[in-house]
Amino acid sequence: MKKLKIGLFGFGVVGQGVYQALQRTSSLNVSIHRICVRSNKPRKAPAELFTTDREILLTDPGIDVIVEVIDDAEAAWQIARTALLNGKHVVSASKKMIVEHLGELLDLQTATGKSILYESAACASIPVIRNLEEYYDHSLLKGLRGIVNGSTNFILGKMKEEELDIRQATLEAQQLGFAESDPSLDLEGIDAVNKCCLLLAHAYGIVTHPSDILYTGIQAITPGDIAIALSKNQDIKLVAQAQKLSTGQITVFVLPQFVAKQDVLYGVRNEYNGVVITTHFADEQFFYGKGAGSLPTASAIVSDLSALCYGYKYEYKKLQRSDRNSLTNEVYLRVYLSYPDAGKVRRQEFEWLEEWHQEEGRGYLTGVIALQKLIDNRWWQRDGHSLILQPDGIIEEVVTRNLRRKSLELAGLVI
Amino acid sequence: MKKLKIGLFGFGVVGQGVYQALQRTSSLNVSIHRICVRSNKPRKAPAELFTTDREILLTDPGIDVIVEVIDDAEAAWQIARTALLNGKHVVSASKKMIVEHLGELLDLQTATGKSILYESAACASIPVIRNLEEYYDHSLLKGLRGIVNGSTNFILGKMKEEELDIRQATLEAQQLGFAESDPSLDLEGIDAVNKCCLLLAHAYGIVTHPSDILYTGIQAITPGDIAIALSKNQDIKLVAQAQKLSTGQITVFVLPQFVAKQDVLYGVRNEYNGVVITTHFADEQFFYGKGAGSLPTASAIVSDLSALCYGYKYEYKKLQRSDRNSLTNEVYLRVYLSYPDAGKVRRQEFEWLEEWHQEEGRGYLTGVIALQKLIDNRWWQRDGHSLILQPDGIIEEVVTRNLRRKSLELAGLVI
Repeated sequence: MKKLKIGLFGFGVVGQGVYQALQRTSSLNVSIHRICVRSNKPRKAPAELFTTDREILLTDPGIDVIVEVIDDAEAAWQIARTALLNGKHVVSASKKMIVEHLGELLDLQTATGKSILYESAACASIPVIRNLEEYYDHSLLKGLRGIVNGSTNFILGKMKEEELDIRQATLEAQQLGFAESDPSLDLEGIDAVNKCCLLLAHAYGIVTHPSDILYTGIQAITPGDIAIALSKNQDIKLVAQAQKLSTGQITVFVLPQFVAKQDVLYGVRNEYNGVVITTHFADEQFFYGKGAGSLPTASAIVSDLSALCYGYKYEYKKLQRSDRNSLTNEVYLRVYLSYPDAGKVRRQEFEWLEEWHQEEGRGYLTGVIALQKLIDNRWWQRDGHSLILQPDGIIEEVVTRNLRRKSLELAGLVI
Repeated sequence: MKKLKIGLFGFGVVGQGVYQALQRTSSLNVSIHRICVRSNKPRKAPAELFTTDREILLTDPGIDVIVEVIDDAEAAWQIARTALLNGKHVVSASKKMIVEHLGELLDLQTATGKSILYESAACASIPVIRNLEEYYDHSLLKGLRGIVNGSTNFILGKMKEEELDIRQATLEAQQLGFAESDPSLDLEGIDAVNKCCLLLAHAYGIVTHPSDILYTGIQAITPGDIAIALSKNQDIKLVAQAQKLSTGQITVFVLPQFVAKQDVLYGVRNEYNGVVITTHFADEQFFYGKGAGSLPTASAIVSDLSALCYGYKYEYKKLQRSDRNSLTNEVYLRVYLSYPDAGKVRRQEFEWLEEWHQEEGRGYLTGVIALQKLIDNRWWQRDGHSLILQPDGIIEEVVTRNLRRKSLELAGLVI
């Protein structure tokens, strides 16, 4: 087992967690050699460890691994790239950086023979990347569905339990340290879609950019939506999912979804994350744990460091396969949509409507719409619309013509 | 990626599952070359695949891997041993064989350079062995608790839902295919303690024999016990667990346990398995999936075959560590005990008693007892006693003298 010397970038919540965790993991043959921070100030670690000069870490031949837990994705990329080129392994928690540069990181790893590991970047303490990479042959894998963002899960929980609107619930989450001061990355689903991209690469060998995936967050969810979920004994969760269709292609998106009580994701509470992996021969397998926070994130980083001691690297096996999977948007979704103004709902975009409730102030409908239509035209993300996927809301094929005509008539009659 | 030719031993429920799964996993570079069965009869596979002569498989130089899914542990050991010595990898589902011969299997793997993988032997579809081996450095690992036997979980569920006694519930489980025709291995906790031994080796690097671990099954659980669990909003589950104590030593046992509603194990229903891994820095992580059955077991075997294609082997890393863990029985348990005859309850064995309920026919008590006393003297497994661990029932230290005297007085008063 190798002895590893670490250069740590960042000493915020996660960086301090890594420092503490390694202090308490004496069995691991790892030591923090130097810590790079943005500014000099008193810290909870010996002053001689700290520097503000990143070059000192990146060029020190005594440092084997750069652990990078900073907020700035662009700076993280420069650090990771230089570290690999300088013959150092990298452990990173920056999902955005990894997703933005995954192709280049693959090339850099091949060129340098060094590894970048990033288990902490998706679902923190849950070893989901490692399991997808190592355990689930892509022919076994049907789909995955996950609650991968703890902040939004916490906020949705507060909206339900304390009957708050999203602004109040977000404020409470911020006060308790479960949401960032700028919560938009979480609320709008950007954090979730980044993680979804990471999972896609290791689940199916598909490298794609978040902008190619349909996503929205929980920003438009109203107390009325929550009340409707409650009335059906369901919860609303922000779910990232990828499903293999009968054609063998994969469809992927991040949307709020009604989750029924018998679904294991229903039980994912507060800031926890949970991922359901569906396989051809063993139905559902469920992985559950803390998805954020100082020590849970540090825990995954320590596991990556332990793996590096044994020479572990992601082999991206599924990327090397000739029969690797491809993405498709040719699928239909059964959705719920609540709206403040019936006149702005584009009924003609739907294949058919199933329910149409016009109440005072705000109405809602349920119906089936092509995923591609949601991508092509974003009317449903404007004007106070709130779109939520139904349970089991993926429909592979639709026999539409008559049904569609009928439902449009129905809609015409109702309004 | 290597192309692997398989010799399959056994074509029962699991063997047929393996055959079917591989038929449907064309992407995997694996083919079944020959199948060894005990007797010739019509089978759901081409007749030319079958033989009753094990030597044909074990000596065929064209066969790379022996997959062994037979019932007879002694025959399985002869097959695995010969296969390794003949330069073949082995994939096995025989927990009993592996546990009985783990030391020899370690030596054989070292001597031959060949691997034996056995993910399917513990919790079938859940990749718990691989995660313990690869992901959880033993310094990170505090404990694990698991429902590792689906039959007993199914039976306990039936006892609760349909208010059956254990005999009726077992009969129903047998009729539905969730219990063996001889259910004693499951009911008495033997299957669970075998799996517990496997988990111990990969969690903590401890190789031990089931007979060195305290275990009992659900054979003595009464409808009255279930009713008491219900009245407390708890379930009774058969739980295998290993916990690291503050001394760094590990305590391990398999006992029925009251499980509270907020415990993730509470949600493990029917024939499912679930394992909670507690780590120092990330609290609890939970793994859940089907723990038995034809295709779930086959699914784990296919994953092992896929791993072999990539040259994977268990490295038993924790066994190589100088600071590896050791077992201890120096711990106290908070237990519930129901009994038909108060006169046969050995009150003096307890450190103290907390409750004592004498009702018509059958009474129960709760109290604290040393684990070593449960091991040394098995009175509590005879005469209709039913011993169930309380939630959070492990107590590291006990200040006893006064409390004990007091509780014995109390017991004396009550009886």
